[in-house]
Amino acid sequence: MSFKVTVLGSSSAIPTSSRFTSAQIVNISERFFLIDCGEATQIQLRKFKIKFSKINHILISHLHPDHYLGIFGLMSSFALMGRKNPLHIYCFKELKELIDSQFKYYYGSLGYRVEYHFLNQDVSEEIYNDNILTIKTIPLKHRIPTSGFLITEKPKELNIKKDIISYYNLCIKDIIQIKRGFDFIKENGEIIKNSELTEPPISPKSFAYCSDTLYNESIIEIIKNVDLLYHEATFLLSEKDRAIETYHSTAFDAATIAKKANAKKLLIGHFSARYRTSDELLKEACAVFENTIAAEDGLVIEI
Amino acid sequence: MSFKVTVLGSSSAIPTSSRFTSAQIVNISERFFLIDCGEATQIQLRKFKIKFSKINHILISHLHPDHYLGIFGLMSSFALMGRKNPLHIYCFKELKELIDSQFKYYYGSLGYRVEYHFLNQDVSEEIYNDNILTIKTIPLKHRIPTSGFLITEKPKELNIKKDIISYYNLCIKDIIQIKRGFDFIKENGEIIKNSELTEPPISPKSFAYCSDTLYNESIIEIIKNVDLLYHEATFLLSEKDRAIETYHSTAFDAATIAKKANAKKLLIGHFSARYRTSDELLKEACAVFENTIAAEDGLVIEI
Repeated sequence: MSFKVTVLGSSSAIPTSSRFTSAQIVNISERFFLIDCGEATQIQLRKFKIKFSKINHILISHLHPDHYLGIFGLMSSFALMGRKNPLHIYCFKELKELIDSQFKYYYGSLGYRVEYHFLNQDVSEEIYNDNILTIKTIPLKHRIPTSGFLITEKPKELNIKKDIISYYNLCIKDIIQIKRGFDFIKENGEIIKNSELTEPPISPKSFAYCSDTLYNESIIEIIKNVDLLYHEATFLLSEKDRAIETYHSTAFDAATIAKKANAKKLLIGHFSARYRTSDELLKEACAVFENTIAAEDGLVIEI
Repeated sequence: MSFKVTVLGSSSAIPTSSRFTSAQIVNISERFFLIDCGEATQIQLRKFKIKFSKINHILISHLHPDHYLGIFGLMSSFALMGRKNPLHIYCFKELKELIDSQFKYYYGSLGYRVEYHFLNQDVSEEIYNDNILTIKTIPLKHRIPTSGFLITEKPKELNIKKDIISYYNLCIKDIIQIKRGFDFIKENGEIIKNSELTEPPISPKSFAYCSDTLYNESIIEIIKNVDLLYHEATFLLSEKDRAIETYHSTAFDAATIAKKANAKKLLIGHFSARYRTSDELLKEACAVFENTIAAEDGLVIEI
């Protein structure tokens, strides 16, 4: 099962000519989730060759313009391209009002259904669940209600060892039972332990998206042991006062959270336009948490 | 006096990876007018090195998303960059409602004043007038109220011929009077005809922006003899039915208007994403009106 994150925008509030504002695509076995949708996300989707028709779920962390402005253009293009599939939007309820107001003077109806799933700022809640993954919210601390998202694969079935199927002449019913952890009972009544028949599955993978937020240790419990943590790092530690004032994190903060949460890898992004490159931010984070990478528009991370 | 048009977006409703949606910058002697503001116009401004602080006037032709969506991000960046100068927006009145709704959940106040100048769909009106230029509207025919814009330099003063100042020992008052067309009266009462003292000024230049519109001959009277006509050419003539259905023009239509209006040069743009290049559109227009060029993002035209 593939689990890939593509960065579409890595700048903070003001885009630059090389960094668009926040947006990421999570692709889990060809199920696509767009997290945040900064201005011109649709242009980035084209640039990085992600098909519009694959996107059925958009998650918006909060209502600052750099995290949602692109949704109007994307929704408009969906309509112009003849979309029929419903679009699911997970967001704070005010976004519906902003979307409704934008489409008031539109060409006509969008032509597809929009289903809103409103977020709750107070607790971590499951907002999505299918046969292979779940998504729950991560309450963040920002100037306005803001939510991160934890995407977790469901535990996979056991793998049957090589040659076991032919050796015991297993039928499909036997295979399903064994993959679920049951022992195998031969026709003569002999019991073969499940552990002799199977190998453990690849452990389920997880991705946490935490932007925008003040340094906030209360998220650690939710994101514990995550495979990939995206945590905003708008500033360097030398701008800590500005980070606190604007409810943002430093690269040092992001790395500290990654370390305390025992994350396997950290991706930092949402860089202030004051930094020409991410070099110093990356250096600061790596000093605390070595396995850190810096977001760039177009970067793809396989989990 | 310089008079330059920079194309920031040349696609129609759906942007592509090489063509953003409608926006053009008109620079007349360092006075900048942004006409239309499609999604991510702020990114194009950076790419083509136009300073945000120079933009004090934004003209929006109509309320289809590909002509205004970028205004939110641009206005947000103005605020984040500490803008203090008032911003003048010329638009149909509903845009104010859309802007107000977007900034309802903003960081705080924008920090600069926004002055709206509402357009009237029914007649061509002067909406701007300073010491060097005027702007008037061009009522267009589209699905919703839509206005083009005609920017015209004011007539310039006469140029005094070389050596005349020293020959007649002219004072500043004399020079001003002669530049305004008066004859010069020497101390002995002799009258020197103005035509002997001056040369005609460079004739005032003009630019007309006509997008989006159905083929509409009623604009010809307004744009007669314009130096540069930008006219949308969403489709080829082979898609004329689609053009009529969506209230757009073909390249043939644009060229016919240019010819009938006796324009000096035609710029076509707002191309449908169905055309990979503008080659066929340009060919179609040139067959009717030879001095035609096709818009590309980043193209600069000196009038």
